[in-house]
Amino acid sequence: MKRLYFLAALLLMAFAAQAQQAIFERRDTRSPQFNDDGTVTLRVKAPDAQKVSVIGDCIENGHADLTQQDGVWSYTTGVLAPELYNYRFYVDGAEVQDAGNIERSRDVRSFMSIFIVSKEEGDRGYLYQNHNVEHGDVAHVWYDSPALGMKRRMSIYTPPGYDQGKAYPVLYLLHGAGGDEEAWLTLGRTAQIMDNLIALGKAKPMIVVMPNGNASDDAGPLESGLKQKGQPKTSYEESFPDIMNYVKSHYKIKKGADNTALCGLSMGGGHTFRISMQNAGTFGYMGLFSAAVRLEWNTRKSLEEQFADHPEAAEQMKKLFAAKPHLYWIAIGKDDFLFQQNVELRQYLDKMQYPYEYYENEGGHIWRNWRIYLSMFAQRLF
Amino acid sequence: MKRLYFLAALLLMAFAAQAQQAIFERRDTRSPQFNDDGTVTLRVKAPDAQKVSVIGDCIENGHADLTQQDGVWSYTTGVLAPELYNYRFYVDGAEVQDAGNIERSRDVRSFMSIFIVSKEEGDRGYLYQNHNVEHGDVAHVWYDSPALGMKRRMSIYTPPGYDQGKAYPVLYLLHGAGGDEEAWLTLGRTAQIMDNLIALGKAKPMIVVMPNGNASDDAGPLESGLKQKGQPKTSYEESFPDIMNYVKSHYKIKKGADNTALCGLSMGGGHTFRISMQNAGTFGYMGLFSAAVRLEWNTRKSLEEQFADHPEAAEQMKKLFAAKPHLYWIAIGKDDFLFQQNVELRQYLDKMQYPYEYYENEGGHIWRNWRIYLSMFAQRLF
Repeated sequence: MKRLYFLAALLLMAFAAQAQQAIFERRDTRSPQFNDDGTVTLRVKAPDAQKVSVIGDCIENGHADLTQQDGVWSYTTGVLAPELYNYRFYVDGAEVQDAGNIERSRDVRSFMSIFIVSKEEGDRGYLYQNHNVEHGDVAHVWYDSPALGMKRRMSIYTPPGYDQGKAYPVLYLLHGAGGDEEAWLTLGRTAQIMDNLIALGKAKPMIVVMPNGNASDDAGPLESGLKQKGQPKTSYEESFPDIMNYVKSHYKIKKGADNTALCGLSMGGGHTFRISMQNAGTFGYMGLFSAAVRLEWNTRKSLEEQFADHPEAAEQMKKLFAAKPHLYWIAIGKDDFLFQQNVELRQYLDKMQYPYEYYENEGGHIWRNWRIYLSMFAQRLF
Repeated sequence: MKRLYFLAALLLMAFAAQAQQAIFERRDTRSPQFNDDGTVTLRVKAPDAQKVSVIGDCIENGHADLTQQDGVWSYTTGVLAPELYNYRFYVDGAEVQDAGNIERSRDVRSFMSIFIVSKEEGDRGYLYQNHNVEHGDVAHVWYDSPALGMKRRMSIYTPPGYDQGKAYPVLYLLHGAGGDEEAWLTLGRTAQIMDNLIALGKAKPMIVVMPNGNASDDAGPLESGLKQKGQPKTSYEESFPDIMNYVKSHYKIKKGADNTALCGLSMGGGHTFRISMQNAGTFGYMGLFSAAVRLEWNTRKSLEEQFADHPEAAEQMKKLFAAKPHLYWIAIGKDDFLFQQNVELRQYLDKMQYPYEYYENEGGHIWRNWRIYLSMFAQRLF
């Protein structure tokens, strides 16, 4: 009987697969196709189109025209190094995602098709892929923020084995402007990076907390129920203890600065800069990824001059480093539009003899870099 | 200082929003646009296109051609009743999602843009939207399945207030062929339906467990780490106790048939049919949505004849109804390709004098109906 049911289930799947609405449509345009020589062929079916082009970070010079055969347009990349790549077609001027590829990511309001190239275990592409390793769980929870006067959504990764009852250290991981509590999971590949680094023995098991950094909102645009976004009651930074209180009361965590890390990208790097100052001794590890580091916005003064104008902030920085954190890590790409702010940050830290580490790489203000920085920073923690 | 930081954060957001990669692109084609007369205008920018058409359940007769002005093509629907609608453009033969609309859903390998029409609190569209009500949390967990020999991913909704320590009843909610553990959340809008029904006082707070019903897989295609999907060690039905054991050991649940419900769509309706038979007395409420109800696949015999050939199954059904479940609920659309199987199921239940309830509506084997059935079934539980 067991075997019969199983057979029935299989046949049923095959039959129902024919019958269900979505599967009526055949998708015979294979894309992306990974070629033996390390190139990738992208295809789009557009039989009546005049012109098809593609943009993306897997395309030489960033954009290219496709060539047509039998109504299918195609483009083959150069040999690609291990990495997560994105691309998008334009068909006679209209924006088109690859219908053959279910992997897409949304950055604010913009969708790109994505694929991952990996050549060996542990390379950059490998870290971003799903593998048959022990997986952590991901929860989307609503926490109460008395400071902001609302329930707010956040994402929380718990490592494999968390349900066995042990306590774990915590990394708070903050997104940038335009992002939300999904950004580090989707564009940032956080669950994959953590699963893989832990499985490879390169990172300690930890809880990763990914809040929403927009103080006027309760959740990302796909989950928010607010009809109007008002003026927030206070700043996101001031509301941050609400997040830590929720994590403390709902999760089994190891306490103290040795077990608590904070990092973020762009606006979230600015949040990290200010939240760590305002909570000296709370975080043993801080990571500023392409961070927006200013005390005032409407000034052309250098960061050092801003600190001179804000002695209370300078005092907070002094306390932060007096608490002897394990790591104050600054990472930025050479072409990042926030590069100069980070030069000024390093100048200030140098002048004050506050210890930090610095990592500089190619590229600008892009998710490719933030995945790299998370992969590096996570290996330094706890 | 607090105010200063807040201002800086706001300005920073505005600036960073200009600078970040994705936001470079302006999206000035407004779509979908909800008009005062109850129609909706859909637009796609395709300046060089020869022909643009649209398909979807919001389009009269299912498809239409768009008209062009200044490179932007548009179509206005008729007056739409409250509902979740889908659509997709074709530009010179290429499949195109609405670049102006971040709401999309994936059904197996196929993406559609979606929007929701609601006219008043509690209507069908309202139930599927996010509102400013108390929200439940959603977790994606990996449970151990000794029966299938792997860790497998599932989604679990916990109702608002779950973290206060009380125990709740459990609904197991199963997807169809081609679906996965995300299907009921994305296409099914389960979190929104449950949040809203609970907030309206129309459903009891409950835990909703959404497993992956494909026995040869560990997770949906975006989360699976398996390189090869082998022959499963046993049937999904036989492995179902692994799911219930995980829920029992990891969640605060009310026990017993009075507090345990099972339902599913299509293949998941077949799973419900068989799992409830194999576990008589376990589920006090069963829901078969557009269900595939057979004991054997490779036969033209009626269900009654199949039961005659499988007396052990007939005995299981007898025990199921001897346990006096509160509800055995069958729902199907008039145009569903599984309609006849459900006629035979009702004939068998009638003949055996097993009590059930039946709901029949318009339409076929589509998510629109499954959202309706879940909304109705959830109000009958516990």
